[in-house]
Amino acid sequence: MQDKEKRLKQQMQFALEIDKAKNVFRQTHLSGYGRKENVAEHSWHIALMAYTLKEYSNEEIDVAKVIVMCLLHDVVEIIAGDTYAYDTENKESQAAREDEAKEVLFSLLPEDQKQEFIALFDEFNAEETAEAKFARAMDNIQPIVLNNSNGGQDWISHKVQKNQVLKRQEITKAGSKVLYDYAMKIVDEHTERGNLIE
Amino acid sequence: MQDKEKRLKQQMQFALEIDKAKNVFRQTHLSGYGRKENVAEHSWHIALMAYTLKEYSNEEIDVAKVIVMCLLHDVVEIIAGDTYAYDTENKESQAAREDEAKEVLFSLLPEDQKQEFIALFDEFNAEETAEAKFARAMDNIQPIVLNNSNGGQDWISHKVQKNQVLKRQEITKAGSKVLYDYAMKIVDEHTERGNLIE
Repeated sequence: MQDKEKRLKQQMQFALEIDKAKNVFRQTHLSGYGRKENVAEHSWHIALMAYTLKEYSNEEIDVAKVIVMCLLHDVVEIIAGDTYAYDTENKESQAAREDEAKEVLFSLLPEDQKQEFIALFDEFNAEETAEAKFARAMDNIQPIVLNNSNGGQDWISHKVQKNQVLKRQEITKAGSKVLYDYAMKIVDEHTERGNLIE
Repeated sequence: MQDKEKRLKQQMQFALEIDKAKNVFRQTHLSGYGRKENVAEHSWHIALMAYTLKEYSNEEIDVAKVIVMCLLHDVVEIIAGDTYAYDTENKESQAAREDEAKEVLFSLLPEDQKQEFIALFDEFNAEETAEAKFARAMDNIQPIVLNNSNGGQDWISHKVQKNQVLKRQEITKAGSKVLYDYAMKIVDEHTERGNLIE
């Protein structure tokens, strides 16, 4: 097989493999509290939110890079599975499981793209660059928006405490103070209503 | 309400409204022929495919713009509903239905973003710019990839003819000759196997 042909074949195998993200389900429910959200649609949602809300980033950002990170950040869950934000036990093993998964999944791609995609995935998780911070802010605020629209049902059923949410929203703050303030209003309201445990 | 507060509220209403795209189903089935694909996960898939396959664009492209078009191109179906690629009857009314829908949906946003999103949506549909052509190539080749993985089941159940697929894949050709050739191999194979009607 020619190199070019092999390259395209690898890329198409990757394109087909990531289809599986549509069957990896998260703990968050869609608005209207219908069914759980899957990784593919979640990633779409935060990518489009990043584009819509880009003006609220604390720092100047390359929004294209933010969007690609949003699209990519959870695909490794095809192999590693989803880890709920407030699942302390599985949170500990999450990084190791995802590191193994990224190696397997991105190895479907030609070597240059494998390295590029791993770098983007790692950058997102390192939370250091302006782009990573804003992408993570999207990843954190989107479930708040959905949960708010569902009367806080996900928090209620998982018996989530206010301080757990506050800790997690520190990531949102690092990306966007404006969106952090927006999230805090929702958190305060749901704490008052007893949906989050004080 | 202050202008800034109103602006953020509008953007967040839009962010919540588009969640509904996760419940608009297309005719294409996921790989493994499980269930039908929804608009949100389809849009995620083609956006990530655009990033992965960008080297195959016939013309030089701003891939960020392509990706945003991919993310946005079907959200109007929240209101207008999905139109199957080979549904000639509903295809005729599609543009008018979607034009009405874009006005309603994007009016949730602040005026500047409404105009920006409509412009991107219109650019995608006009098929004139290099970015629109490549985004549309993604939109057209992705169902081919899924359908191929499912033994051509969607073509079989809709009694699709080879020439219908060929006509539609002209759009892929305008965006990427390499990916068009890739699609043609799949089409020829499924015609030979009788999955597409000669």
